[in-house]
Amino acid sequence: MQSPAYAALPQQFHFSAGARGEWSIVSVNAVTGESLPAAPRLEFSAGEAAPGAKWTLRGFTSNARYTTRAELATLGVKPAPLARADATCEALIPIAKSAAWWALAQDTRREILANASQHIAIGSEYLPAIARQLHHCRDLGEPFDFLTWFEFAPEHEPRFEQLVARLRTTPEWRYVEREVELRLVRERRRPADG
Amino acid sequence: MQSPAYAALPQQFHFSAGARGEWSIVSVNAVTGESLPAAPRLEFSAGEAAPGAKWTLRGFTSNARYTTRAELATLGVKPAPLARADATCEALIPIAKSAAWWALAQDTRREILANASQHIAIGSEYLPAIARQLHHCRDLGEPFDFLTWFEFAPEHEPRFEQLVARLRTTPEWRYVEREVELRLVRERRRPADG
Repeated sequence: MQSPAYAALPQQFHFSAGARGEWSIVSVNAVTGESLPAAPRLEFSAGEAAPGAKWTLRGFTSNARYTTRAELATLGVKPAPLARADATCEALIPIAKSAAWWALAQDTRREILANASQHIAIGSEYLPAIARQLHHCRDLGEPFDFLTWFEFAPEHEPRFEQLVARLRTTPEWRYVEREVELRLVRERRRPADG
Repeated sequence: MQSPAYAALPQQFHFSAGARGEWSIVSVNAVTGESLPAAPRLEFSAGEAAPGAKWTLRGFTSNARYTTRAELATLGVKPAPLARADATCEALIPIAKSAAWWALAQDTRREILANASQHIAIGSEYLPAIARQLHHCRDLGEPFDFLTWFEFAPEHEPRFEQLVARLRTTPEWRYVEREVELRLVRERRRPADG
């Protein structure tokens, strides 16, 4: 068990809910559509899924799908690395978009996401306090299209809540058919768990 | 064994080279980088890989990554369905692009692929004679990034060769680190193969 660490190449990861894991699941909230079953803990693993989990979601990190050179430059000046010692609050937000979204051309999706909804700009406003890592999963035949992982310090929790509330009011979110918000806290493993 | 048939949702497919399969492998040509081992036949399967294959490449169909509304409209007027009875010549071209390509921003990749290289426009010139289906595989940790499948009638073979030759001279192809071209012919199964 360790915090997410991401390589330049696409890599597959598993989020497994059950009795084990570095994160304690504080809440599971169905924002839109069906929820996910509650469980005490969440385990993060590369490679194979953790055995014996109540449920597992998998996704892969990949290249940027919408971000422009200019946006990458803006994001680059506010680096928000994962696994910072003070970022003990986490969230995992699985999202599925509609068939209508996926049938749109690339420029239409970019127009809705970046221009009409300011998704990239809004996210960058909350850097470096709210770190994010996107995992793709639609192409794996999973029930969700994306798993977004958030990390932040306890004092930034109101900022995290503002960030996701703002995104949910955007035109892009009209295409979201299912969204579940898991809130987590990272707990050090006790030596007995060794 | 059947010809490719694609759904609206992403779906994973396997191309397996070995003793079996609907397609006879006419040639395996390393265009750039390492080749693939020769084999007599190629089998196409959804879901699970064909057992006992010499090698298997897998990829998934997905949403368009670069195509604009205007380009989709242009492509839409020249539909080129797969598995046409007279399209008995096939090609499978696995390609891997460099790390430098994947590190580029979306707008830079689009600029190189669509504007500087005219990839989409060149492909559409050869419709409906040369049907194409793209499969993505970089995100699966495969040795290639894309597997493009081509179908055409024997009399259109010179057009297919012109199409791929033109693409290989484009700026986009400077990012291609490995490319293998497999040429195939479809053979009806004999009743004994049942």
